[in-house]
Amino acid sequence: MPLAMVGDKFIASEKLDPAYLDYGTFFGDGVYEVLRSYDGKLFGLAEHLARFERSLKEIDIQGIDINTVRQRVLKAFEKFNKPDAKIYFHITRGAGPRDHAAQNLSPRFFLLISECEDFDKQKQKGISVITVPDTRWKRCDIKSLNLLPNVLAKRQAQKRGCGEAVFVDDSGFITEGASSAFFAIFGNVLKTAPLNINILPSITRQFVLDIYANTGLELKEERIKAETAASADELFIAVSSRDIVPVVKFNEIEISTGQPGKFTKLLIKEFAKLAQNK
Amino acid sequence: MPLAMVGDKFIASEKLDPAYLDYGTFFGDGVYEVLRSYDGKLFGLAEHLARFERSLKEIDIQGIDINTVRQRVLKAFEKFNKPDAKIYFHITRGAGPRDHAAQNLSPRFFLLISECEDFDKQKQKGISVITVPDTRWKRCDIKSLNLLPNVLAKRQAQKRGCGEAVFVDDSGFITEGASSAFFAIFGNVLKTAPLNINILPSITRQFVLDIYANTGLELKEERIKAETAASADELFIAVSSRDIVPVVKFNEIEISTGQPGKFTKLLIKEFAKLAQNK
Repeated sequence: MPLAMVGDKFIASEKLDPAYLDYGTFFGDGVYEVLRSYDGKLFGLAEHLARFERSLKEIDIQGIDINTVRQRVLKAFEKFNKPDAKIYFHITRGAGPRDHAAQNLSPRFFLLISECEDFDKQKQKGISVITVPDTRWKRCDIKSLNLLPNVLAKRQAQKRGCGEAVFVDDSGFITEGASSAFFAIFGNVLKTAPLNINILPSITRQFVLDIYANTGLELKEERIKAETAASADELFIAVSSRDIVPVVKFNEIEISTGQPGKFTKLLIKEFAKLAQNK
Repeated sequence: MPLAMVGDKFIASEKLDPAYLDYGTFFGDGVYEVLRSYDGKLFGLAEHLARFERSLKEIDIQGIDINTVRQRVLKAFEKFNKPDAKIYFHITRGAGPRDHAAQNLSPRFFLLISECEDFDKQKQKGISVITVPDTRWKRCDIKSLNLLPNVLAKRQAQKRGCGEAVFVDDSGFITEGASSAFFAIFGNVLKTAPLNINILPSITRQFVLDIYANTGLELKEERIKAETAASADELFIAVSSRDIVPVVKFNEIEISTGQPGKFTKLLIKEFAKLAQNK
Protein backbone atom coordinates (compact mmCIF):
# COMPACT_ATOMS: atom_id res chain seq x y z
CA MET A 1 0.00 0.00 0.00
CA PRO A 2 1.17 3.54 -0.67
CA LEU A 3 2.74 5.42 2.20
CA ALA A 4 2.07 9.09 2.89
CA MET A 5 3.93 11.80 4.72
CA VAL A 6 2.17 14.84 6.15
CA GLY A 7 4.88 17.23 7.18
CA ASP A 8 7.32 14.97 9.04
CA LYS A 9 4.84 12.25 9.92
CA PHE A 10 4.36 8.98 8.12
CA ILE A 11 0.86 7.64 7.71
CA ALA A 12 -0.46 4.68 5.71
CA SER A 13 -2.33 6.15 2.75
CA GLU A 14 -5.50 4.19 3.58
CA LYS A 15 -5.63 5.95 6.95
CA LEU A 16 -5.45 9.43 5.46
CA ASP A 17 -8.48 11.64 5.61
CA PRO A 18 -9.73 11.57 1.99
CA ALA A 19 -9.14 15.33 1.86
CA TYR A 20 -5.43 14.53 1.42
CA LEU A 21 -6.15 12.61 -1.76
CA ASP A 22 -8.68 15.08 -3.09
CA TYR A 23 -8.42 15.87 -6.78
CA GLY A 24 -9.11 19.45 -5.78
CA THR A 25 -5.61 19.51 -4.28
CA PHE A 26 -3.79 17.30 -6.78
CA PHE A 27 -5.17 19.08 -9.84
CA GLY A 28 -7.54 21.88 -8.83
CA ASP A 29 -10.08 19.53 -10.35
CA GLY A 30 -13.27 21.05 -9.05
CA VAL A 31 -15.60 24.03 -9.25
CA TYR A 32 -16.93 26.42 -6.63
CA GLU A 33 -19.28 29.27 -5.79
CA VAL A 34 -19.34 32.08 -3.25
CA LEU A 35 -22.54 33.82 -2.27
CA ARG A 36 -23.82 35.85 0.63
CA SER A 37 -26.93 36.84 2.52
CA TYR A 38 -28.18 40.31 3.33
CA ASP A 39 -30.19 40.75 6.51
CA GLY A 40 -31.14 37.12 6.79
CA LYS A 41 -31.92 36.54 3.11
CA LEU A 42 -29.68 34.55 0.78
CA PHE A 43 -28.98 36.57 -2.33
CA GLY A 44 -28.85 35.12 -5.84
CA LEU A 45 -28.91 31.46 -4.80
CA ALA A 46 -30.70 30.35 -7.97
CA GLU A 47 -28.21 32.21 -10.15
CA HIS A 48 -25.19 30.80 -8.31
CA LEU A 49 -26.58 27.27 -8.51
CA ALA A 50 -27.24 27.65 -12.24
CA ARG A 51 -23.65 28.75 -12.82
CA PHE A 52 -22.38 25.96 -10.57
CA GLU A 53 -24.33 23.39 -12.55
CA ARG A 54 -22.85 24.73 -15.77
CA SER A 55 -19.30 24.64 -14.35
CA LEU A 56 -19.78 21.01 -13.28
CA LYS A 57 -20.96 20.15 -16.78
CA GLU A 58 -18.06 21.95 -18.45
CA ILE A 59 -15.48 19.91 -16.54
CA ASP A 60 -17.54 16.72 -16.83
CA ILE A 61 -18.24 16.06 -13.15
CA GLN A 62 -21.35 13.97 -13.38
CA GLY A 63 -24.09 12.67 -11.12
CA ILE A 64 -24.58 15.79 -9.01
CA ASP A 65 -28.16 16.56 -8.04
CA ILE A 66 -28.20 20.34 -7.92
CA ASN A 67 -31.22 20.25 -5.65
CA THR A 68 -29.15 18.39 -3.05
CA VAL A 69 -26.60 21.19 -3.28
CA ARG A 70 -29.39 23.75 -2.82
CA GLN A 71 -30.69 21.90 0.26
CA ARG A 72 -27.21 21.77 1.78
CA VAL A 73 -26.70 25.49 1.27
CA LEU A 74 -30.09 26.23 2.83
CA LYS A 75 -29.46 23.89 5.77
CA ALA A 76 -26.04 25.44 6.42
CA PHE A 77 -27.51 28.94 6.26
CA GLU A 78 -30.27 27.97 8.69
CA LYS A 79 -27.91 26.26 11.11
CA PHE A 80 -25.32 29.05 11.02
CA ASN A 81 -28.10 31.53 11.70
CA LYS A 82 -26.42 34.89 11.07
CA PRO A 83 -28.08 37.59 8.99
CA ASP A 84 -24.98 38.48 6.95
CA ALA A 85 -23.25 35.28 6.01
CA LYS A 86 -20.80 34.35 3.29
CA ILE A 87 -21.08 30.86 1.87
CA TYR A 88 -18.30 29.15 -0.05
CA PHE A 89 -18.90 25.71 -1.50
CA HIS A 90 -17.13 23.45 -3.96
CA ILE A 91 -17.40 20.04 -5.54
CA THR A 92 -14.25 18.22 -6.59
CA ARG A 93 -14.03 15.16 -8.82
CA GLY A 94 -13.31 12.97 -5.81
CA ALA A 95 -10.44 11.44 -3.87
CA GLY A 96 -8.16 8.60 -4.83
CA PRO A 97 -4.72 7.67 -6.08
CA ARG A 98 -3.34 10.52 -8.15
CA ASP A 99 -4.22 9.82 -11.79
CA HIS A 100 -5.16 12.55 -14.25
CA ALA A 101 -7.81 10.44 -15.95
CA ALA A 102 -9.16 8.35 -13.06
CA GLN A 103 -12.61 6.87 -13.50
CA ASN A 104 -15.45 6.27 -11.06
CA LEU A 105 -14.45 8.69 -8.36
CA SER A 106 -17.14 9.99 -6.02
CA PRO A 107 -17.42 13.77 -6.19
CA ARG A 108 -16.80 15.51 -2.87
CA PHE A 109 -18.84 18.42 -1.54
CA PHE A 110 -17.39 20.96 0.86
CA LEU A 111 -18.99 24.10 2.24
CA LEU A 112 -17.82 26.83 4.57
CA ILE A 113 -20.10 29.49 6.00
CA SER A 114 -18.77 32.48 7.92
CA GLU A 115 -19.87 35.95 8.88
CA CYS A 116 -19.46 38.58 6.18
CA GLU A 117 -16.62 40.92 6.82
CA ASP A 118 -17.55 44.56 7.08
CA PHE A 119 -16.75 46.26 3.79
CA ASP A 120 -18.42 49.59 4.61
CA LYS A 121 -15.17 51.50 4.70
CA GLN A 122 -14.11 50.11 1.30
CA LYS A 123 -17.47 51.03 -0.13
CA GLN A 124 -17.34 54.54 1.25
CA LYS A 125 -13.74 55.38 0.48
CA GLY A 126 -13.09 53.17 -2.52
CA ILE A 127 -10.03 51.04 -3.24
CA SER A 128 -6.89 51.32 -5.35
CA VAL A 129 -6.18 48.77 -8.06
CA ILE A 130 -3.21 47.80 -10.19
CA THR A 131 -3.19 46.04 -13.52
CA VAL A 132 -1.35 42.76 -14.11
CA PRO A 133 -0.99 40.66 -17.26
CA ASP A 134 -3.81 38.15 -17.62
CA THR A 135 -1.88 34.87 -17.46
CA ARG A 136 -4.91 32.69 -16.74
CA TRP A 137 -6.03 29.69 -18.76
CA LYS A 138 -8.41 30.04 -21.70
CA ARG A 139 -11.58 28.89 -19.95
CA CYS A 140 -12.09 31.56 -17.34
CA ASP A 141 -15.82 31.18 -17.95
CA ILE A 142 -15.57 28.06 -15.74
CA LYS A 143 -15.45 28.87 -12.04
CA SER A 144 -12.78 26.31 -11.25
CA LEU A 145 -10.32 25.77 -8.40
CA ASN A 146 -7.38 26.63 -10.71
CA LEU A 147 -6.82 30.04 -9.18
CA LEU A 148 -3.07 30.35 -8.83
CA PRO A 149 -2.77 33.29 -11.27
CA ASN A 150 -5.52 35.03 -9.32
CA VAL A 151 -3.67 34.42 -6.05
CA LEU A 152 -0.40 35.72 -7.50
CA ALA A 153 -2.15 38.80 -8.89
CA LYS A 154 -3.89 39.50 -5.57
CA ARG A 155 -0.66 39.12 -3.63
CA GLN A 156 1.04 41.56 -5.97
CA ALA A 157 -1.82 44.03 -5.49
CA GLN A 158 -1.63 43.68 -1.75
CA LYS A 159 2.10 44.35 -1.74
CA ARG A 160 1.38 47.59 -3.55
CA GLY A 161 -1.33 48.52 -1.05
CA CYS A 162 -4.14 47.83 -3.51
CA GLY A 163 -7.45 46.09 -2.91
CA GLU A 164 -7.69 44.36 -6.26
CA ALA A 165 -5.60 43.37 -9.28
CA VAL A 166 -7.14 43.90 -12.71
CA PHE A 167 -6.19 41.52 -15.52
CA VAL A 168 -5.12 42.95 -18.88
CA ASP A 169 -4.96 40.65 -21.90
CA ASP A 170 -2.24 40.53 -24.56
CA SER A 171 -4.05 43.16 -26.64
CA GLY A 172 -4.16 45.62 -23.76
CA PHE A 173 -7.81 45.14 -22.88
CA ILE A 174 -9.09 44.68 -19.35
CA THR A 175 -10.77 41.33 -18.86
CA GLU A 176 -11.79 41.44 -15.18
CA GLY A 177 -10.49 41.67 -11.65
CA ALA A 178 -8.69 38.77 -9.97
CA SER A 179 -11.89 38.11 -7.98
CA SER A 180 -14.33 40.64 -9.40
CA ALA A 181 -15.95 42.06 -12.51
CA PHE A 182 -14.68 45.43 -13.70
CA PHE A 183 -16.72 48.47 -14.77
CA ALA A 184 -15.89 51.96 -16.04
CA ILE A 185 -18.19 54.96 -16.42
CA PHE A 186 -17.50 57.62 -19.05
CA GLY A 187 -20.03 60.46 -18.83
CA ASN A 188 -23.31 58.59 -18.42
CA VAL A 189 -22.08 55.48 -20.25
CA LEU A 190 -21.40 52.34 -18.25
CA LYS A 191 -18.85 50.04 -19.85
CA THR A 192 -17.84 46.49 -19.08
CA ALA A 193 -16.30 43.76 -21.20
CA PRO A 194 -18.81 41.46 -22.94
CA LEU A 195 -18.92 37.89 -21.66
CA ASN A 196 -16.62 35.48 -23.41
CA ILE A 197 -14.60 32.39 -22.50
CA ASN A 198 -11.88 34.65 -21.05
CA ILE A 199 -14.27 36.13 -18.47
CA LEU A 200 -16.26 34.63 -15.65
CA PRO A 201 -19.99 35.16 -16.08
CA SER A 202 -20.16 37.12 -12.84
CA ILE A 203 -23.50 36.98 -11.03
CA THR A 204 -22.93 40.40 -9.47
CA ARG A 205 -22.09 41.79 -12.93
CA GLN A 206 -25.47 40.50 -14.11
CA PHE A 207 -27.22 42.16 -11.17
CA VAL A 208 -25.48 45.45 -12.02
CA LEU A 209 -26.83 45.09 -15.56
CA ASP A 210 -30.29 44.56 -14.06
CA ILE A 211 -30.25 47.84 -12.12
CA TYR A 212 -28.01 50.33 -13.93
CA ALA A 213 -30.91 51.85 -15.89
CA ASN A 214 -32.47 53.09 -12.64
CA THR A 215 -29.53 55.44 -12.18
CA GLY A 216 -29.75 57.14 -15.57
CA LEU A 217 -26.76 55.28 -16.98
CA GLU A 218 -26.59 53.84 -20.47
CA LEU A 219 -24.81 50.55 -21.12
CA LYS A 220 -22.13 49.66 -23.64
CA GLU A 221 -20.84 46.14 -23.28
CA GLU A 222 -17.46 46.64 -24.81
CA ARG A 223 -13.88 45.97 -23.88
CA ILE A 224 -11.97 48.74 -22.10
CA LYS A 225 -8.32 49.45 -22.88
CA ALA A 226 -6.23 49.55 -19.73
CA GLU A 227 -4.71 52.85 -20.84
CA THR A 228 -8.13 54.54 -21.14
CA ALA A 229 -9.49 53.23 -17.83
CA ALA A 230 -7.53 55.81 -15.85
CA SER A 231 -9.33 58.59 -17.74
CA ALA A 232 -12.79 57.25 -16.85
CA ASP A 233 -15.06 59.41 -14.69
CA GLU A 234 -15.72 56.50 -12.37
CA LEU A 235 -14.51 52.95 -11.92
CA PHE A 236 -15.80 50.15 -9.75
CA ILE A 237 -15.60 46.42 -9.22
CA ALA A 238 -18.45 44.00 -8.59
CA VAL A 239 -18.09 40.87 -6.49
CA SER A 240 -20.59 38.66 -4.65
CA SER A 241 -19.17 39.14 -1.18
CA ARG A 242 -19.07 42.97 -1.41
CA ASP A 243 -21.38 43.76 -4.34
CA ILE A 244 -20.13 47.16 -5.62
CA VAL A 245 -16.84 48.72 -4.51
CA PRO A 246 -15.66 52.05 -5.97
CA VAL A 247 -12.17 52.19 -7.48
CA VAL A 248 -10.55 55.56 -6.80
CA LYS A 249 -7.01 54.87 -7.98
CA PHE A 250 -5.96 52.93 -11.06
CA ASN A 251 -2.25 52.14 -11.39
CA GLU A 252 -1.57 54.99 -8.96
CA ILE A 253 -3.58 57.49 -11.01
CA GLU A 254 -6.48 59.12 -9.19
CA ILE A 255 -9.86 58.68 -10.85
CA SER A 256 -11.55 62.11 -11.15
CA THR A 257 -11.43 63.64 -7.68
CA GLY A 258 -10.16 60.46 -6.03
CA GLN A 259 -13.57 59.96 -4.39
CA PRO A 260 -16.27 57.42 -5.25
CA GLY A 261 -18.35 58.85 -8.10
CA LYS A 262 -22.00 59.79 -8.12
CA PHE A 263 -23.21 56.98 -10.37
CA THR A 264 -21.26 54.41 -8.37
CA LYS A 265 -22.91 55.67 -5.18
CA LEU A 266 -26.32 55.45 -6.86
CA LEU A 267 -25.55 51.91 -8.02
CA ILE A 268 -24.60 50.90 -4.48
CA LYS A 269 -27.96 52.18 -3.29
CA GLU A 270 -29.83 50.44 -6.09
CA PHE A 271 -27.97 47.23 -5.30
CA ALA A 272 -28.96 47.47 -1.65
CA LYS A 273 -32.60 47.80 -2.72
CA LEU A 274 -32.26 44.77 -4.97
CA ALA A 275 -30.70 42.76 -2.13
CA GLN A 276 -33.62 43.72 0.14
CA ASN A 277 -36.37 42.97 -2.33
CA LYS A 278 -35.18 40.07 -4.43
CA MET B 1 -16.74 30.62 14.22
CA PRO B 2 -17.18 29.46 10.65
CA LEU B 3 -19.16 26.30 10.12
CA ALA B 4 -18.18 23.66 7.59
CA MET B 5 -20.05 20.92 5.78
CA VAL B 6 -18.28 17.87 4.39
CA GLY B 7 -20.82 16.10 2.25
CA ASP B 8 -23.93 16.12 4.45
CA LYS B 9 -22.16 16.50 7.76
CA PHE B 10 -21.69 19.69 9.72
CA ILE B 11 -18.43 20.27 11.50
CA ALA B 12 -17.07 23.34 13.29
CA SER B 13 -14.34 24.75 11.08
CA GLU B 14 -11.77 24.68 13.90
CA LYS B 15 -12.25 20.90 14.16
CA LEU B 16 -11.56 20.30 10.48
CA ASP B 17 -8.38 18.56 9.47
CA PRO B 18 -6.30 21.43 8.02
CA ALA B 19 -6.29 19.58 4.68
CA TYR B 20 -9.85 20.90 4.22
CA LEU B 21 -8.64 24.48 4.40
CA ASP B 22 -5.53 23.90 2.33
CA TYR B 23 -4.76 26.58 -0.25
CA GLY B 24 -3.87 23.72 -2.56
CA THR B 25 -7.57 22.92 -2.71
CA PHE B 26 -8.99 26.43 -2.58
CA PHE B 27 -6.67 27.84 -5.23
CA GLY B 28 -4.28 25.14 -6.47
CA ASP B 29 -1.79 27.33 -4.64
CA GLY B 30 1.16 24.97 -4.47
CA VAL B 31 3.85 23.22 -6.46
CA TYR B 32 4.81 19.58 -6.80
CA GLU B 33 7.24 17.01 -8.17
CA VAL B 34 7.06 13.37 -9.21
CA LEU B 35 10.14 11.18 -9.38
CA ARG B 36 10.90 7.49 -9.30
CA SER B 37 13.55 4.96 -8.40
CA TYR B 38 15.03 2.25 -10.58
CA ASP B 39 16.21 -0.92 -8.85
CA GLY B 40 16.56 0.69 -5.47
CA LYS B 41 18.14 3.95 -6.64
CA LEU B 42 16.32 7.25 -6.68
CA PHE B 43 16.69 8.86 -10.07
CA GLY B 44 17.22 12.56 -10.66
CA LEU B 45 16.53 13.68 -7.08
CA ALA B 46 18.89 16.65 -7.29
CA GLU B 47 17.29 17.81 -10.55
CA HIS B 48 13.75 17.45 -9.21
CA LEU B 49 14.65 19.32 -6.04
CA ALA B 50 16.26 22.13 -8.03
CA ARG B 51 13.12 22.51 -10.14
CA PHE B 52 10.96 22.34 -7.02
CA GLU B 53 12.96 25.10 -5.37
CA ARG B 54 12.55 27.26 -8.48
CA SER B 55 8.77 26.62 -8.56
CA LEU B 56 8.44 27.62 -4.90
CA LYS B 57 10.33 30.81 -5.64
CA GLU B 58 8.21 31.63 -8.69
CA ILE B 59 4.99 31.50 -6.69
CA ASP B 60 6.60 33.18 -3.68
CA ILE B 61 6.26 30.39 -1.12
CA GLN B 62 9.02 31.28 1.28
CA GLY B 63 10.88 29.73 4.17
CA ILE B 64 11.26 26.23 2.76
CA ASP B 65 14.56 24.51 3.50
CA ILE B 66 15.11 22.36 0.42
CA ASN B 67 17.41 20.11 2.39
CA THR B 68 14.52 19.24 4.70
CA VAL B 69 12.52 18.26 1.63
CA ARG B 70 15.44 16.12 0.44
CA GLN B 71 15.65 14.39 3.83
CA ARG B 72 11.92 13.67 3.82
CA VAL B 73 12.07 12.16 0.35
CA LEU B 74 15.03 9.99 1.36
CA LYS B 75 13.37 8.91 4.61
CA ALA B 76 10.15 8.00 2.79
CA PHE B 77 12.07 6.05 0.17
CA GLU B 78 13.98 4.18 2.87
CA LYS B 79 10.88 3.42 4.90
CA PHE B 80 8.81 2.33 1.89
CA ASN B 81 11.64 0.05 0.87
CA LYS B 82 10.65 -1.02 -2.66
CA PRO B 83 13.14 -0.96 -5.54
CA ASP B 84 10.81 0.67 -8.06
CA ALA B 85 8.94 3.41 -6.29
CA LYS B 86 7.13 6.51 -7.48
CA ILE B 87 7.28 9.56 -5.21
CA TYR B 88 4.87 12.43 -5.44
CA PHE B 89 5.31 15.43 -3.17
CA HIS B 90 3.93 18.93 -2.95
CA ILE B 91 4.09 22.04 -0.84
CA THR B 92 1.10 24.34 -0.64
CA ARG B 93 1.02 27.87 0.74
CA GLY B 94 -0.73 26.65 3.87
CA ALA B 95 -4.17 26.25 5.39
CA GLY B 96 -6.49 28.91 6.70
CA PRO B 97 -9.62 30.90 6.00
CA ARG B 98 -10.04 31.29 2.24
CA ASP B 99 -8.40 34.58 1.24
CA HIS B 100 -6.49 35.02 -2.01
CA ALA B 101 -3.82 37.20 -0.44
CA ALA B 102 -3.55 35.74 3.07
CA GLN B 103 -0.34 36.42 4.95
CA ASN B 104 1.69 34.33 7.37
CA LEU B 105 0.39 30.91 6.44
CA SER B 106 2.58 27.90 7.21
CA PRO B 107 3.42 25.97 4.04
CA ARG B 108 2.23 22.37 4.08
CA PHE B 109 4.26 19.40 2.87
CA PHE B 110 2.64 16.23 1.59
CA LEU B 111 4.25 13.17 0.05
CA LEU B 112 2.92 9.92 -1.34
CA ILE B 113 5.12 7.00 -2.27
CA SER B 114 3.78 3.97 -4.13
CA GLU B 115 5.08 1.15 -6.27
CA CYS B 116 5.72 2.03 -9.89
CA GLU B 117 3.16 0.62 -12.25
CA ASP B 118 4.46 -1.69 -14.91
CA PHE B 119 4.75 0.22 -18.16
CA ASP B 120 6.62 -2.47 -20.10
CA LYS B 121 3.74 -3.14 -22.46
CA GLN B 122 3.39 0.57 -23.25
CA LYS B 123 7.11 0.82 -23.87
CA GLN B 124 7.12 -2.20 -26.15
CA LYS B 125 3.97 -1.50 -28.13
CA GLY B 126 3.79 2.28 -27.93
CA ILE B 127 0.76 4.43 -27.30
CA SER B 128 -1.68 6.48 -29.36
CA VAL B 129 -2.04 10.20 -28.77
CA ILE B 130 -4.49 12.91 -29.78
CA THR B 131 -3.92 16.63 -29.97
CA VAL B 132 -5.98 19.13 -28.00
CA PRO B 133 -5.84 22.93 -27.90
CA ASP B 134 -3.42 24.19 -25.28
CA THR B 135 -5.75 26.09 -22.97
CA ARG B 136 -3.33 26.27 -20.04
CA TRP B 137 -2.15 29.39 -18.29
CA LYS B 138 0.90 31.31 -19.43
CA ARG B 139 3.34 30.05 -16.80
CA CYS B 140 3.55 26.35 -17.62
CA ASP B 141 7.22 26.55 -16.66
CA ILE B 142 6.01 26.45 -13.04
CA LYS B 143 5.08 22.93 -11.90
CA SER B 144 1.96 24.05 -10.05
CA LEU B 145 -1.17 22.31 -8.80
CA ASN B 146 -3.28 24.17 -11.38
CA LEU B 147 -3.74 21.15 -13.60
CA LEU B 148 -7.38 21.21 -14.62
CA PRO B 149 -6.65 21.69 -18.36
CA ASN B 150 -4.26 18.74 -18.16
CA VAL B 151 -6.93 16.62 -16.48
CA LEU B 152 -9.52 17.58 -19.09
CA ALA B 153 -7.08 16.81 -21.91
CA LYS B 154 -6.14 13.43 -20.40
CA ARG B 155 -9.78 12.50 -19.93
CA GLN B 156 -10.48 13.36 -23.55
CA ALA B 157 -7.52 11.23 -24.65
CA GLN B 158 -8.68 8.32 -22.54
CA LYS B 159 -12.18 8.48 -24.01
CA ARG B 160 -10.58 8.15 -27.44
CA GLY B 161 -8.48 5.18 -26.31
CA CYS B 162 -5.28 7.21 -26.23
CA GLY B 163 -2.49 7.19 -23.67
CA GLU B 164 -1.65 10.87 -23.84
CA ALA B 165 -3.03 14.20 -25.04
CA VAL B 166 -0.63 16.55 -26.80
CA PHE B 167 -1.18 20.29 -26.45
CA VAL B 168 -1.16 22.47 -29.57
CA ASP B 169 -0.89 26.24 -29.21
CA ASP B 170 -2.84 28.89 -31.12
CA SER B 171 -0.22 28.96 -33.89
CA GLY B 172 -0.50 25.23 -34.49
CA PHE B 173 2.72 24.25 -32.73
CA ILE B 174 3.01 21.38 -30.27
CA THR B 175 4.02 22.55 -26.81
CA GLU B 176 4.10 19.29 -24.82
CA GLY B 177 1.99 16.39 -23.59
CA ALA B 178 -0.54 16.82 -20.79
CA SER B 179 1.92 15.08 -18.45
CA SER B 180 4.98 14.55 -20.65
CA ALA B 181 7.50 16.16 -22.97
CA PHE B 182 7.05 15.49 -26.69
CA PHE B 183 9.70 14.46 -29.23
CA ALA B 184 9.71 13.75 -32.97
CA ILE B 185 12.40 12.13 -35.09
CA PHE B 186 12.76 12.99 -38.78
CA GLY B 187 15.52 10.91 -40.38
CA ASN B 188 18.29 11.14 -37.81
CA VAL B 189 17.16 14.49 -36.43
CA LEU B 190 15.58 14.63 -33.00
CA LYS B 191 13.22 17.55 -32.52
CA THR B 192 11.57 18.96 -29.44
CA ALA B 193 10.24 22.41 -28.61
CA PRO B 194 12.76 24.74 -26.93
CA LEU B 195 12.05 25.59 -23.31
CA ASN B 196 9.94 28.65 -22.75
CA ILE B 197 7.37 29.87 -20.24
CA ASN B 198 4.71 27.82 -22.06
CA ILE B 199 6.56 24.54 -21.42
CA LEU B 200 7.55 22.72 -18.26
CA PRO B 201 11.32 22.27 -17.99
CA SER B 202 10.94 18.49 -17.97
CA ILE B 203 13.67 16.61 -16.13
CA THR B 204 13.21 13.56 -18.33
CA ARG B 205 13.47 15.78 -21.42
CA GLN B 206 16.82 16.99 -20.09
CA PHE B 207 18.00 13.42 -19.57
CA VAL B 208 16.99 12.59 -23.16
CA LEU B 209 19.10 15.54 -24.30
CA ASP B 210 21.98 14.10 -22.24
CA ILE B 211 21.90 10.73 -24.03
CA TYR B 212 20.56 11.21 -27.57
CA ALA B 213 24.03 11.61 -29.06
CA ASN B 214 24.88 8.01 -28.08
CA THR B 215 22.28 6.77 -30.55
CA GLY B 216 23.56 8.64 -33.61
CA LEU B 217 20.80 11.23 -33.50
CA GLU B 218 21.32 14.94 -34.06
CA LEU B 219 19.31 17.49 -32.10
CA LYS B 220 17.27 20.45 -33.27
CA GLU B 221 15.46 22.22 -30.50
CA GLU B 222 12.65 23.71 -32.52
CA ARG B 223 8.90 23.79 -32.38
CA ILE B 224 7.01 21.09 -34.27
CA LYS B 225 3.82 21.86 -36.16
CA ALA B 226 1.03 19.47 -35.20
CA GLU B 227 0.33 18.83 -38.88
CA THR B 228 3.89 17.67 -39.58
CA ALA B 229 4.19 15.45 -36.50
CA ALA B 230 2.18 12.68 -38.16
CA SER B 231 4.76 12.50 -40.96
CA ALA B 232 7.65 12.00 -38.54
CA ASP B 233 9.58 8.73 -38.70
CA GLU B 234 9.25 8.28 -34.96
CA LEU B 235 7.49 10.00 -32.08
CA PHE B 236 7.80 9.52 -28.36
CA ILE B 237 6.95 11.11 -25.05
CA ALA B 238 9.19 11.49 -22.01
CA VAL B 239 7.88 11.49 -18.45
CA SER B 240 9.51 10.82 -15.08
CA SER B 241 7.35 7.86 -14.10
CA ARG B 242 7.85 6.00 -17.42
CA ASP B 243 10.93 7.69 -18.97
CA ILE B 244 10.49 7.10 -22.75
CA VAL B 245 7.29 5.80 -24.30
CA PRO B 246 6.99 5.39 -28.09
CA VAL B 247 4.04 7.04 -29.83
CA VAL B 248 2.76 4.89 -32.70
CA LYS B 249 -0.42 6.72 -33.60
CA PHE B 250 -0.93 10.48 -33.77
CA ASN B 251 -4.49 11.71 -34.21
CA GLU B 252 -5.37 8.24 -35.54
CA ILE B 253 -2.59 8.32 -38.14
CA GLU B 254 -0.02 5.52 -37.87
CA ILE B 255 3.56 6.67 -37.48
CA SER B 256 5.72 4.84 -40.05
CA THR B 257 4.94 1.14 -39.63
CA GLY B 258 2.86 1.65 -36.49
CA GLN B 259 5.65 0.11 -34.39
CA PRO B 260 8.13 1.80 -32.05
CA GLY B 261 11.01 3.09 -34.17
CA LYS B 262 14.67 2.09 -34.03
CA PHE B 263 15.98 5.31 -32.50
CA THR B 264 13.27 5.30 -29.86
CA LYS B 265 14.24 1.76 -28.90
CA LEU B 266 17.88 2.79 -28.70
CA LEU B 267 16.95 5.78 -26.54
CA ILE B 268 15.01 3.52 -24.18
CA LYS B 269 18.13 1.36 -23.80
CA GLU B 270 20.37 4.36 -23.28
CA PHE B 271 17.95 5.70 -20.70
CA ALA B 272 18.01 2.39 -18.82
CA LYS B 273 21.81 2.60 -18.74
CA LEU B 274 21.63 6.15 -17.42
CA ALA B 275 19.15 5.08 -14.72
CA GLN B 276 21.51 2.29 -13.66
CA ASN B 277 24.67 4.36 -13.59
CA LYS B 278 23.65 7.83 -12.54
